[in-house]
Parts: sequence; structure tokens; C-alpha cells
Amino acid sequence: MKLLNETLKKISTLDAEAMKKASLHIDSLFKPLKSLGRLEDLAIQLAGITKNPFPSVDNKAIIVMSADHGVYEEGIAPDPQSITAIQTPNFAKGLTGVCALAKQARADVVIVDIGIAKDIQDHRVINRKIRYGTSNMAKGPAMTREEAIKSLEIGIEVTLDQIKNGKKLIGTGEMGIGNTTPSTAIFSVIGGIDPEEIVGVGAGLPTEKLKHKAAVIRKAIEVNQPDPKDGIDVLSKIGGFEIGGMVGTMLGAAAERIPVVVDGFISTAAALIAITIEPKVKDFLIPSHYTAERGGKVAIELVGLKPMFDMELRLGEGTGAALAFNFIEAATFMVKEMGKRP
Amino acid sequence: MKLLNETLKKISTLDAEAMKKASLHIDSLFKPLKSLGRLEDLAIQLAGITKNPFPSVDNKAIIVMSADHGVYEEGIAPDPQSITAIQTPNFAKGLTGVCALAKQARADVVIVDIGIAKDIQDHRVINRKIRYGTSNMAKGPAMTREEAIKSLEIGIEVTLDQIKNGKKLIGTGEMGIGNTTPSTAIFSVIGGIDPEEIVGVGAGLPTEKLKHKAAVIRKAIEVNQPDPKDGIDVLSKIGGFEIGGMVGTMLGAAAERIPVVVDGFISTAAALIAITIEPKVKDFLIPSHYTAERGGKVAIELVGLKPMFDMELRLGEGTGAALAFNFIEAATFMVKEMGKRP
Repeated sequence: MKLLNETLKKISTLDAEAMKKASLHIDSLFKPLKSLGRLEDLAIQLAGITKNPFPSVDNKAIIVMSADHGVYEEGIAPDPQSITAIQTPNFAKGLTGVCALAKQARADVVIVDIGIAKDIQDHRVINRKIRYGTSNMAKGPAMTREEAIKSLEIGIEVTLDQIKNGKKLIGTGEMGIGNTTPSTAIFSVIGGIDPEEIVGVGAGLPTEKLKHKAAVIRKAIEVNQPDPKDGIDVLSKIGGFEIGGMVGTMLGAAAERIPVVVDGFISTAAALIAITIEPKVKDFLIPSHYTAERGGKVAIELVGLKPMFDMELRLGEGTGAALAFNFIEAATFMVKEMGKRP
Repeated sequence: MKLLNETLKKISTLDAEAMKKASLHIDSLFKPLKSLGRLEDLAIQLAGITKNPFPSVDNKAIIVMSADHGVYEEGIAPDPQSITAIQTPNFAKGLTGVCALAKQARADVVIVDIGIAKDIQDHRVINRKIRYGTSNMAKGPAMTREEAIKSLEIGIEVTLDQIKNGKKLIGTGEMGIGNTTPSTAIFSVIGGIDPEEIVGVGAGLPTEKLKHKAAVIRKAIEVNQPDPKDGIDVLSKIGGFEIGGMVGTMLGAAAERIPVVVDGFISTAAALIAITIEPKVKDFLIPSHYTAERGGKVAIELVGLKPMFDMELRLGEGTGAALAFNFIEAATFMVKEMGKRP
């Protein structure tokens, strides 16, 4: 709780002076005013985050949180739960989707076991396991409040380690069979939306099971009665360990004034929890893509962010964040490489 | 005419066998089927273009065509015409917007004077000047049919040189004060659209002058009566030298089975001419972004392409193509780096 409180206390506002300097500089470049659109907005936001009108993001990482979900037993996911444990070491081996895209974007991938249902043998997977998966939220709280706080603090610690190692741009990724279910529950509770309006197929649930998935989510909300104003309460009752870890990453990065990229559906749920806990975090978040998961558009609108691209991705893992790293880096190149108007 | 005819003869269809191999490979990767969306489509298209299921695009260039426009004298642009000549050497110096973004994407920028109104002293600007700007299309044809063919062949030659030098991915860029005017004329003629419906502010024309800009375009079309079925006729009567050069780049790249990226409004006009000349070119084109120029969405729909992102760019130069290079490269990394499902 101490680390969480300290972190929350450190989260401040964007630096108006650096943003003004960046804006004046960008307007002096040899191009029609505002003609680089959202790259200019990004550069100004980066200046505000880092207090530096000429920031670099050359050293980057995607932090992937991996965990399992007790609600899996309700039949809400098409794949065996064991896929989480099987796939997690592949992040360390560089074989997953986000690893491929991160390599293109010259970013590291950091993989954390924050609650996988099995033990992971690969020592390159950071072992911060809270427990062997959450409890079934359709029957009671997914985790205790203490566990929820622990998940946040693990996310903060792992992220602070990366920042100490020189990382200047962080992306959020995840792995966890069934995790569109708690994510949808989070959007439903905080957004006040019926689950059936936003529930989607995740990794490929047959559409005839969507009503069942929505019913499970509705039941979890009824059983647990999470307080939509209390992000930690929502996380503990209907969230997941990897979602908590991602929230922690967002809080930790914001506290250290490091830009942090929101990925797809699960990451957006983490972002919604993060801004519910501390609204100032929002200014430190950079959106990436519109996920192809149904409800993704509604979800990112709840956070109040506008994604930059739509590649019809629905893999998660941080894949959209990795692609977005290129645009964010391009914004820094615009600031540093372009000439001024005569 | 010989080079153009030879080039057109070489343009073939996508290689179905390589596409099938790529598709089977992608479906064997450790991820939910189709969950990398348009990255998968891109990888399959790249296979079809290159006849190789595992292509590389590590060596890339944006070819920027620069030229002036006789129609400038009608008052259709906010900037002095001399900006074209002043800005062009800045591409060689690495100081323009596209240079900054190409550096991030690890791509070269090649700059060609294909018809600037002044002589350019910088020897790094490839001098293929056809003439000191087009004629005023509001009074007669912008160029002769021979000049139009010459612009295509220059584009082809410059592009073949780049491909001989090892370039595996080409982007199209341009510089030319006033060039949204001929581009809009091209969309109007080939799309059968009234100019007023799609005319935009370009580099910052005051909105009260939009009606005038549309009237100039309408007059150019009336005076010249271009044949919408004849791409070269449209180019010569209401086009521009840099647009012709970009069409040539698209034709040359397609003939050599090298993927070629469409940038913004002007590049889209070139794409429309290219597919009017040879519809098979379309399969070799890769879209990038929705330009913020009014009419851009209608324009890219005329070509039949769906852009990947919307960064509200309206600079041109090839900036959107440079950003898109990252996504295209990411598709090749997905194919080569990801592991297979167990």
C-alpha cells in the first residue's frame, strides 16, 4: 500500500511550459501549420509528459503481464486454459506476435507471471505470481482487496525497474486466456453499460455463446456489487491479476513522467481502472489502435482516448502498442530532424 | 513510349501460389486465426507481389517528385510558388517532414526535379526537369501528350534505378505548390464528381477561396475535355509533372513486382491515373493514411483502397507512406519471427 500511495502522490499534471516550447518549435518548422496533425499533438504531449520539448523514445519496452482467471470454468473462452502457461515462455523466446512487432519497433519485451495457473519454468519470465489464477468472479470476488493492491504494486515495481534501466517509452501488453470477460465486466460496471451491448468473441468464442458470456458477466456484477467509483474495488471483484499489473504499469510510468501506450481491449480496461483510481493518469496515456474486439470502440471512448489506427487487430499481447511505438518515435524525429521555415 | 509500353506489358497479377503459402504459414502461427487482421492481409499481398511467402522490405525508399504548376497564376494556393524551389533542396539535406519520418522508418528519400519553375543548384536533387512548370490548365492543356508520357517514363526510370540498387519497398511522395488543384481535377474527371464537392484548402487556402478554386478546376475541365477513360489524356490536360512521375513510380514498381505505397491526396490522384492506364497496378499498391485534405476519403475510395490509419496529416511529401513503411515491415516480421502453434 505504501508504494501505491507514494506512486499516486507523485502523479502530477503535464508540463505546460515544455508543451508551449514544443508547440512554438513545431510551428516554426518548414511545413504548413498543423499539417502533421496528430504527430504534432503527440510531440506536444510527449513534451508535457517528459518536461522536455525535445524528448527521445529510443529505448522502449512492452511490459506483458500474464495470468489466469477463475471465471474460465464458466465456459467463456474457446481455448484450453493451459494456453496461458504454454504461451508465456514464448514471450521470453521472442516467438509471440508482440515479440515480432516489438523487434520491428526496436523495443524490448518484458514478460511477467503475475498469476498463471501453473508454474513457469523459464527463468526469463519474471516470477511475481500472486496466486494460481483469480477466483471465479461469477461466484465471488476474483481476488481480495490486498491482492488487487499487490497486483498494482507489482506492476509499479516492474515498470520502475524498466525505467531505471533507461526505458523512455513503455507499452502495456497481456496474456491470459479468458481475459476479455473481466475486461468487459470492468467496462460494464464503470461505464454503466449492459454486458450484452459490448460482449465480444475474444480469441474466437462461437457467437452463439455470446449471450452466455454476457450472462456470466452480469452474474459476476450482481454477486459482487463493485463500486464503480472505486477502481481498486472494481479490480478486486471483477478484474484480473494481469489487468492489475497493467494498471500498475500505467500508474508507475505516469509517476515517473514516462509515456505509456494503451494497447487493445484488456489494456483499455486497465486504463479505465487507472483513471478511476487517479484521473491525472490519463494525460500520460497514449492510445494506439481500435481493436477488432466488439465493444472496443465504446471501451476506448470511456477512457476518453482516440486511437491512431485500425489494423483490425484482436490478438492483444501489446501488439497494437508495438506498432504505435513507431508513430510516437516518428513524432520525436519530426521535432528533432526537420528544418525551420526560412 | 517504348519504355512505357514495355513496362505496362510486364505488369502481371499477384502470385496465387505464394499467397497461398503465406496464408497457410500465417494460419499456423501461435495466435487466434486472423487475429493480426490487416497485418496478415499485408503479408499475403506482399507474398503475391514478390512471389515470395517470406519477403523482406529492409531496404526502402520514398521517391519524391517535385514540380510547379501553371495554374498557380489563377490564385489557387496560399504560398508563393517559389516555395517549391526553396523547399526541394531541403529533401536532399534531410530537413523536410518526410525526411524526418523516413529516418525513423530507416528509409532513403530520393528527390527528383521533374518540372520546377526554377533551376535547382543542389546536385543531390536528381535533375529530370521536363520544363519550368506546366502550362495553366485553366487556359489549355497542362502539358502535351508527349510530355505526359515523358513524365511517366522518368518516374519509371528513377524507380527502376532504385530497385536495381536493392530497394524492396517504394513510397511515393511529392512537392509542388498548388498541386491539390490538378489532383482534385483528376478525381473530378475520372470519378465524375463536381469539383465543389471535394475541393479542399490544400496548404491553407482561406476557405472563402474554395469556390474560386472549384471554379478554376471546372473551367480547366471544360476547356480541355479530358477523356476519363484515357489516363494519359487526363494527366496531360489537367495533371502535373510530379503526378506523372508518381504514376511512373507506381507502374515501374508494379512491373518489377515491388510493393509501392500510396501517400496522401496527390499520390492518390497518381494512383487513380495509374489504375486507369493499367488496372492490374492496383494489386501492387499499398494504401497508407486518410489525408486530412477534404475529398481525401472520396479520392481513396475511387482507387478502391482502404487506408490503415488516420493521423490527420495533410503535408504530403510522402509522410504518410513513411509511417506506413513501419506497418508493412511489421507484417514481414510477423511472418518471419513468430513461432508456430504446438
